[in-house]
Amino acid sequence: MQADNYSKLKKKVYNIIFEAETPMGKAFDIGLIICILLSIVVIMLESVDSIKLSIGELLLVFEWIFTVIFTMEYVLRVWTVKKKKQYIYSFYGIIDLLSILPTYLSLVMSGAHVLLILRSVRLIRVFRVLKLARFVGEGQVLMSALKASRHKITVFLLIVVTSVILAGSLMYMIEGKENGFSNIPTSIYWAIVTLTTVGYGDISPSTPLGQFVASIIMILGYGIIAIPTGIVTAEMAYQKNKVVTTEVCPHCLQEGHDKDAVHCKYCGGKLN
Amino acid sequence: MQADNYSKLKKKVYNIIFEAETPMGKAFDIGLIICILLSIVVIMLESVDSIKLSIGELLLVFEWIFTVIFTMEYVLRVWTVKKKKQYIYSFYGIIDLLSILPTYLSLVMSGAHVLLILRSVRLIRVFRVLKLARFVGEGQVLMSALKASRHKITVFLLIVVTSVILAGSLMYMIEGKENGFSNIPTSIYWAIVTLTTVGYGDISPSTPLGQFVASIIMILGYGIIAIPTGIVTAEMAYQKNKVVTTEVCPHCLQEGHDKDAVHCKYCGGKLN
Amino acid sequence: MQADNYSKLKKKVYNIIFEAETPMGKAFDIGLIICILLSIVVIMLESVDSIKLSIGELLLVFEWIFTVIFTMEYVLRVWTVKKKKQYIYSFYGIIDLLSILPTYLSLVMSGAHVLLILRSVRLIRVFRVLKLARFVGEGQVLMSALKASRHKITVFLLIVVTSVILAGSLMYMIEGKENGFSNIPTSIYWAIVTLTTVGYGDISPSTPLGQFVASIIMILGYGIIAIPTGIVTAEMAYQKNKVVTTEVCPHCLQEGHDKDAVHCKYCGGKLN
Amino acid sequence: MQADNYSKLKKKVYNIIFEAETPMGKAFDIGLIICILLSIVVIMLESVDSIKLSIGELLLVFEWIFTVIFTMEYVLRVWTVKKKKQYIYSFYGIIDLLSILPTYLSLVMSGAHVLLILRSVRLIRVFRVLKLARFVGEGQVLMSALKASRHKITVFLLIVVTSVILAGSLMYMIEGKENGFSNIPTSIYWAIVTLTTVGYGDISPSTPLGQFVASIIMILGYGIIAIPTGIVTAEMAYQKNKVVTTEVCPHCLQEGHDKDAVHCKYCGGKLN
Repeated sequence: MQADNYSKLKKKVYNIIFEAETPMGKAFDIGLIICILLSIVVIMLESVDSIKLSIGELLLVFEWIFTVIFTMEYVLRVWTVKKKKQYIYSFYGIIDLLSILPTYLSLVMSGAHVLLILRSVRLIRVFRVLKLARFVGEGQVLMSALKASRHKITVFLLIVVTSVILAGSLMYMIEGKENGFSNIPTSIYWAIVTLTTVGYGDISPSTPLGQFVASIIMILGYGIIAIPTGIVTAEMAYQKNKVVTTEVCPHCLQEGHDKDAVHCKYCGGKLN
Repeated sequence: MQADNYSKLKKKVYNIIFEAETPMGKAFDIGLIICILLSIVVIMLESVDSIKLSIGELLLVFEWIFTVIFTMEYVLRVWTVKKKKQYIYSFYGIIDLLSILPTYLSLVMSGAHVLLILRSVRLIRVFRVLKLARFVGEGQVLMSALKASRHKITVFLLIVVTSVILAGSLMYMIEGKENGFSNIPTSIYWAIVTLTTVGYGDISPSTPLGQFVASIIMILGYGIIAIPTGIVTAEMAYQKNKVVTTEVCPHCLQEGHDKDAVHCKYCGGKLN
Repeated sequence: MQADNYSKLKKKVYNIIFEAETPMGKAFDIGLIICILLSIVVIMLESVDSIKLSIGELLLVFEWIFTVIFTMEYVLRVWTVKKKKQYIYSFYGIIDLLSILPTYLSLVMSGAHVLLILRSVRLIRVFRVLKLARFVGEGQVLMSALKASRHKITVFLLIVVTSVILAGSLMYMIEGKENGFSNIPTSIYWAIVTLTTVGYGDISPSTPLGQFVASIIMILGYGIIAIPTGIVTAEMAYQKNKVVTTEVCPHCLQEGHDKDAVHCKYCGGKLN
Repeated sequence: MQADNYSKLKKKVYNIIFEAETPMGKAFDIGLIICILLSIVVIMLESVDSIKLSIGELLLVFEWIFTVIFTMEYVLRVWTVKKKKQYIYSFYGIIDLLSILPTYLSLVMSGAHVLLILRSVRLIRVFRVLKLARFVGEGQVLMSALKASRHKITVFLLIVVTSVILAGSLMYMIEGKENGFSNIPTSIYWAIVTLTTVGYGDISPSTPLGQFVASIIMILGYGIIAIPTGIVTAEMAYQKNKVVTTEVCPHCLQEGHDKDAVHCKYCGGKLN
């Protein structure tokens, strides 16, 4: 009887922690997201010198509270899940562990502390909560559009990488060390800053020839953004249009019906 | 008889102030927009020290003139509108009040003055004037495209937010306080500046590793702009090609019917 | 007889100058473009102090040569064209005049000189030369796409303008004069620099709250670029698809033929 | 017999070097890419002063090793290829030669060294390896989309060039030498930096009028990015939906036929 209760409890805890469809499960997930968000805020505030000086103690207390909560959660997850190894070595399992370890590590070594920010990866769990809504479908459309265009994007990235290597080297030759283009890697960094239109201005060309070449790189960078945009957009528009079936109405023989159509929009007859 | 005249006047004023279809109403709206624009210019000029020094008195006079005009307009609106409470607590009502209060407040407390800039929100009224033309339809297409893609945009924003938190924390660890990445919030601010390709250059990486990571963030930011663009564009192209009406089926109350639909695609019932 | 020769010559000169279909007319247009380009280069070089010091005399000679050429061209245009007034007051006529006046003006007043750069507007003539090729059609597609989306773009620009006025004023209140946001117009300039992702960095927020608000403006600016892009793209895709006619083949009754199709692509039968 | 063996060996070497379908050929290509990548890294590291100081000798050794490898490869290519002249004067042939020459040149003249970075152009070979996969088709779609929109892009570039010349000259007149706009070419460089939303901030307007004009240029630059994006996207969406073959009609030699076309749409003749 006790073993039965034990396994019942385990099942119940499992449903709360891993499932998000029940009210309890949803509440747990939302509570977890709030804890993650708050613990990220605590870590951020701790990195600000003036705040650490005034309420550092309090923040340390909060950090330990969150660490204990996350440790309990981790232990419960390992306890209730059936395929323990699979969970522990899964992406989520590793992130869950990594988001509690640094606090314990900080007891024996300083600096480990900052690794806590890995907790922000846990924010991905927010998608789990959103799963309940229409978000997963939308996310999948995004993913499948990106997946379908991955070859084109690879070609595009190769062109960009080759371009910035060549542009960076060229500018290194033209501008030289005295104008801030101190070596080829730095010049390539400049080329990326320029091509992506970020333009910090920490390094900028000062010779007329350098400014001319830079102008060409800028116009190139300004223009080729059209390529990834075109790729992704064409893919998305394609997937969007696929929603219309090629089904023909058996009554009036017209086509162009939506995927979710039950009746023909022209004659009102039932579709197959 | 007098009460009749009174209510006739009220009706007439209402038509001038709230309706934009009559010549008088249109003239009122255009005059109002010009007043709003001029009053914004006055507030802007007042904030410039050199101008305030030379013609500050004159600007103050203008400000009071516009405030009196807007106050009269507000009183007339409250007087003529039937559902007074609904107007007062509506978005427009609150904005209308907020755009006159600061001038009166500035009599008792200094600094309140600057709040006058809230008047620029009143510029939204410009859309009311434009309503007469084709603009509302166009604006609705924009709105419905954005509304239809709001789930995808939420997913996108969540990815962006998670990315900048991680990227900012990573750069805080790599670059550290001595290179301007003085704490995690500042580093996240830098990551946003970089990912959105704004690139002020007030903070910029100086270590080779930092520049390498920054380069990846830049290329990422340069590329993922394709995602919101793709979402919105696909949606707009879809709406352009296949205009969905806002008509509701009188039988099953479902909406989302094509413009050329004669029967409801869900229940087969005849549409109006 | 002489009058006949005179009008024949006038006709011939007219054809050379205004028409671009004959070999002579084409040669004239290309020669003109080259002259315009060279005269722009001369004006640019003259503005560089070091170059002006060494070859300033030579550049002045060239400037006068080009001015004389353009003056002759202008005189010939006025002489040969039938509707003289219409040409003189047309956009092209005014630009043609404005591109020779500054040199003459520079004889009596210094500084007028720099206005010569208006000559670069004459570069638009390049489209006339290109007209011979397929370019006009392509340009027209661009124009008609932009024209068809002008209402949507107006709505978009109104939103952008209202946003930058509000954002600028907000930042003026938050950051204040001591951080470079010295008055509202300057703050609005900063907001435009930020929203358009230009990001000079001549003014940048330094308070935590200011950086937070700036981050939101950046993400907004990064995202809303999707709107004009979506508008123009959807319009272009729409116009591109319109190329397919709804004509049905009279032989096999299939449709989906290109606009330039003469024969049915399915049965080879002649289309109407 | 020996001649036979010799030609067999030549054939075999040819297959390894020029073909990528056999396992040996694939291994060769991948090995080559790795060598190219490593040699680029060596050249980059050599340009960093601190690294050159500590392990400069080692890097020089590596550079000679890669040069010898690439020299052997070049000799083998020339030896095995049938149309020797065609290869030597081809794009690939010239790049292959240019990527070994600088090292030899550096023996007689210093500085030639830096030209080695031309090796990065050899990275294009990576597409050859990828050819095995689906990449060529994807690359071709990209290319044909760009090719189909080359007229529109030319028109767009002409507008951009005319705009930056005018905007640059205007700002030169407004801001003048004392604010960093020291001559027209520099001002045009600034206009490009601004229009492309790069925004280094090395030159930025400081007069109110200059900031106002700059704001207009920024909003223009922010908006017109929509044009190339629209062009490329519409083209890609079009190609995606209606795949046009590269088949030429055997009767009238015209191309541009749809994939499902059976007859030529121009002459009605049967396609293969």
